[in-house]
Amino acid sequence: MNMSQALSLFQQHEATLKAAITAIHDRGFWTPYPEHPKAYSETGDEEGKTAFSKMMNENFTELLQEGETGFIGEEVSPYLQLGLGIRYPKFGAKQLIDKAQAQKKNWGNTDYNSRAGILIEALHRIQSRFFEIAYATMHTTGQSFIMSFQASGPHANDRALEALAVAYEELTRIPSEKEWVKPMGKFEIRLDKNWKAVPKGVSLVIGCSTFPTWNTVPGMFASLMTGNPVIVKPHPKAILPIAIVIAEVQKVLKEAGMSPDICQMAVDTLAAPITKELAEDPAVKLIDFTGSSSFGDYVESLPGKTVFTEKAGVNSCLIDSVNDLTPVLQNLAFAVSLYSGQMCTAPQNIFIPSGGVKTAGGLVPYEEVVQALKDAINGLVNHPKMGAGTLGGIQAETTLERAKNAVSLGGKVILASENIVNPEFEGARVASPALIEVNAQDQKIYFGECFGPVVFVIKTKNSEESLALMKQAAEEKGAITCAAYCTDEGMMHHIEEEMNEVFTPVSFNFTGAIFVNQHAAFSDFHVTGGNAAGNASFANPDFVNRRFVWVGNRRIK
Amino acid sequence: MNMSQALSLFQQHEATLKAAITAIHDRGFWTPYPEHPKAYSETGDEEGKTAFSKMMNENFTELLQEGETGFIGEEVSPYLQLGLGIRYPKFGAKQLIDKAQAQKKNWGNTDYNSRAGILIEALHRIQSRFFEIAYATMHTTGQSFIMSFQASGPHANDRALEALAVAYEELTRIPSEKEWVKPMGKFEIRLDKNWKAVPKGVSLVIGCSTFPTWNTVPGMFASLMTGNPVIVKPHPKAILPIAIVIAEVQKVLKEAGMSPDICQMAVDTLAAPITKELAEDPAVKLIDFTGSSSFGDYVESLPGKTVFTEKAGVNSCLIDSVNDLTPVLQNLAFAVSLYSGQMCTAPQNIFIPSGGVKTAGGLVPYEEVVQALKDAINGLVNHPKMGAGTLGGIQAETTLERAKNAVSLGGKVILASENIVNPEFEGARVASPALIEVNAQDQKIYFGECFGPVVFVIKTKNSEESLALMKQAAEEKGAITCAAYCTDEGMMHHIEEEMNEVFTPVSFNFTGAIFVNQHAAFSDFHVTGGNAAGNASFANPDFVNRRFVWVGNRRIK
Repeated sequence: MNMSQALSLFQQHEATLKAAITAIHDRGFWTPYPEHPKAYSETGDEEGKTAFSKMMNENFTELLQEGETGFIGEEVSPYLQLGLGIRYPKFGAKQLIDKAQAQKKNWGNTDYNSRAGILIEALHRIQSRFFEIAYATMHTTGQSFIMSFQASGPHANDRALEALAVAYEELTRIPSEKEWVKPMGKFEIRLDKNWKAVPKGVSLVIGCSTFPTWNTVPGMFASLMTGNPVIVKPHPKAILPIAIVIAEVQKVLKEAGMSPDICQMAVDTLAAPITKELAEDPAVKLIDFTGSSSFGDYVESLPGKTVFTEKAGVNSCLIDSVNDLTPVLQNLAFAVSLYSGQMCTAPQNIFIPSGGVKTAGGLVPYEEVVQALKDAINGLVNHPKMGAGTLGGIQAETTLERAKNAVSLGGKVILASENIVNPEFEGARVASPALIEVNAQDQKIYFGECFGPVVFVIKTKNSEESLALMKQAAEEKGAITCAAYCTDEGMMHHIEEEMNEVFTPVSFNFTGAIFVNQHAAFSDFHVTGGNAAGNASFANPDFVNRRFVWVGNRRIK
Repeated sequence: MNMSQALSLFQQHEATLKAAITAIHDRGFWTPYPEHPKAYSETGDEEGKTAFSKMMNENFTELLQEGETGFIGEEVSPYLQLGLGIRYPKFGAKQLIDKAQAQKKNWGNTDYNSRAGILIEALHRIQSRFFEIAYATMHTTGQSFIMSFQASGPHANDRALEALAVAYEELTRIPSEKEWVKPMGKFEIRLDKNWKAVPKGVSLVIGCSTFPTWNTVPGMFASLMTGNPVIVKPHPKAILPIAIVIAEVQKVLKEAGMSPDICQMAVDTLAAPITKELAEDPAVKLIDFTGSSSFGDYVESLPGKTVFTEKAGVNSCLIDSVNDLTPVLQNLAFAVSLYSGQMCTAPQNIFIPSGGVKTAGGLVPYEEVVQALKDAINGLVNHPKMGAGTLGGIQAETTLERAKNAVSLGGKVILASENIVNPEFEGARVASPALIEVNAQDQKIYFGECFGPVVFVIKTKNSEESLALMKQAAEEKGAITCAAYCTDEGMMHHIEEEMNEVFTPVSFNFTGAIFVNQHAAFSDFHVTGGNAAGNASFANPDFVNRRFVWVGNRRIK
């Protein structure tokens, strides 16, 4: 390693690291990566679009890992309904693991400051490519441009830096060496002790199709910071955004005199997947996974692995009482429509008491609330300036089918999912949310995750029943978020206590420009890790501590 | 709860808590509980012996848990070879779990300071009973009086306080509430946030027969401090020491206006065990286990539980080079003889190169080293003042049989295990260690844990082979300790790196009054949690963090 290079990177970024460590304790707002595109270069958008266009129909040659056996790729733009034509170097599972294994000792023995310097510098380089990454995300996931920019750019970098900062703090909480002196009456025993955070081994990070960088970088940076070589296996339909991120990490590694194989990308296709071969290899000790519950359960069941999962859950919203119904339903309409419900944090089940919702202006009957929610969703999705942008595109054909089929689930159809035209991309796969009304007892309909633009309104006896069902769903099926609208302090306390007991966070009375879907780095834990929606959390101490083992050695003086 | 009582306990013990938190970061020597009996009351020994004698052949009525269905007990003193006749209140598994469940909310909502105040006060009360606990430990485990006093008294209290301090620090690392203010250009979003460490649920702590308090209190205090109600299920042959501990916890709970059911004891018999019924109950979310690998593997395999295990391992010692062989072999003789190898930290396999051991006075041939080790062990165990006290008693008949049968394992018998007479307890089950010489390739003989007084000398080609075999054994079978004698800095570095890679700590060149068997609280992690010897560590952050879930709630301002 070029020690002076790594050291100079650390010095350059030490203030950022220290601020990040302060931020994870303060938990007020902080970020070194502004979230608005306008905070960046004026020509950035145009340049990013051009750079993305140039990548299409070419081999992706930025990665520094060598020995590929060919080039593969099958990404399709949900906006263009067209293959991107980008092909990535192909490697066999064993080849990737052998290369990662070969870097284990070298990276594991690299000091914490050098690791931190290299990784924060990589985030800095990634920042200069936010626009490209945004277009790459848009045309793989179907997210709108602005969501693509924010989620895959600044917000992903935030989460990566957060994981790195949590890891750095954990690694440095215990002294690396200490003289231990035990008084024995007439004499003393003196030992020189040291403590080492020994990395667990090769780390596999399995990405998802909807948030290819945001959900991948926390595990990737946590594993790298704690000294584990990483293999990132993106979803075959969403590779480009993370490929750019990995390429930047590899470049900085190489500049610091380290092997790019410390952080490799593994690409496969839907027809010939290599994820299981990677995951089951005995050398792979750590697995991060974002995706379906069935594959997540499989990953969690693998013996001898430390596993971090984010799986499916059923997020709920309880409406009990509000000051003014209009901003509440506008906020909810946006929350369920944003990226067509393809966020793991999006509400799916909205519980409304049959007796109506208390407001400052009196009780609003149940039917009126449902009608107003319908109107709010319709108003948003059909809004010429906001509709298509809010919905974004549907990432997968199966998600669209699920939305279309919602009308035949058995509930009362308030809104069917309809095709929406995005004026900018006429053939884009865009659909409005289906809104289905069901009764409290129809749990077989609304207790499972219905990923995508499907929303259930559940008519309950009262808010106590709403809460009981919401709690039961979270306990049995898992939940990442829970929204509650309530003006009564006692009831709010009760809701919080009940939902927290099933390890589900509650967001109260969100209106305006803040939505239950949003989890802010350096403040909100993403997924609690306590229920069926996943066993890990971005980024609590567990998220990093389980990637290494403290080993202490002693020597007589 | 009597809040003023709990608060006053916290104020009383706050300085101890703060010092403990400082100590876990400093990792130099610290303890609030002196380890020498002479540091306590002069009449303590006599009073403790009397108190213990009075308990014999009586029902144990100190516990404050109610509704027992009878009294049971079958402890036998390895020294007296006589049943203690002490009977403990009997409860059904379901009964215990229902009572624990009933305390979940109450204890979970008790503030951290109150929990800490109650628990440190309990340790303080336990301290006043160290002598009784020592006799209870001696006559259940077979430990010598001095080891019983230290291990079950001050050292156990140290580990309990350490776990509590680690937990307290983790719980208070994140603010309980914070205003989050996000600048949005022309306006700001303001949220009131809170974070709660939600306890996972009922905690089951399964004790072992050899260290009934030392191995039990870390999990017990970690679970209690993080808000989980605890059920302690001691080994049916070693109940009394932990019964006294639990009784003291229950008394302080009651005085503070809390239910004693927050910390219950579950007693069973070898013929009618209830451990599996407790462990498999869905309400039990946390399990701490110390004992055999087979039962530990079963506990680890239970779905939906967070499990902390200490299982069996194979501890090794490598002799490469020394200054002076005599103090080295004296130290080793003591380490293998102490409590007859019934410590999870005792060395079992001693690797010696066939070419001999380098010393300051020249090379000592292999045969001479083995002879000197034999002499050192013989000298110790037959020493009229030290022998019986060092060996202690054999806790279980099967352990004695294993030692006796070591002569027929297939190696060359250097020393057969022989009965040793303890002048104080003539019928005591006391045996000297068997010392068996094997070749490097006889792995089927020495690669398994041979619990008790059985030591193998393994003749290797050279120290490289010693190290390779030692590493392989740790990787395949697990290891808690590793001793190495080596005067070459490069080789020491190499040994440390190799053994640390399989998550095994190394103790170098121990001579004099410090032994590889000893792990000091507030400094040495006990078990790394990284190899097959166990998945948990006293007491790293993981040991407490996995007992609760961070849940954050948000509210618009």
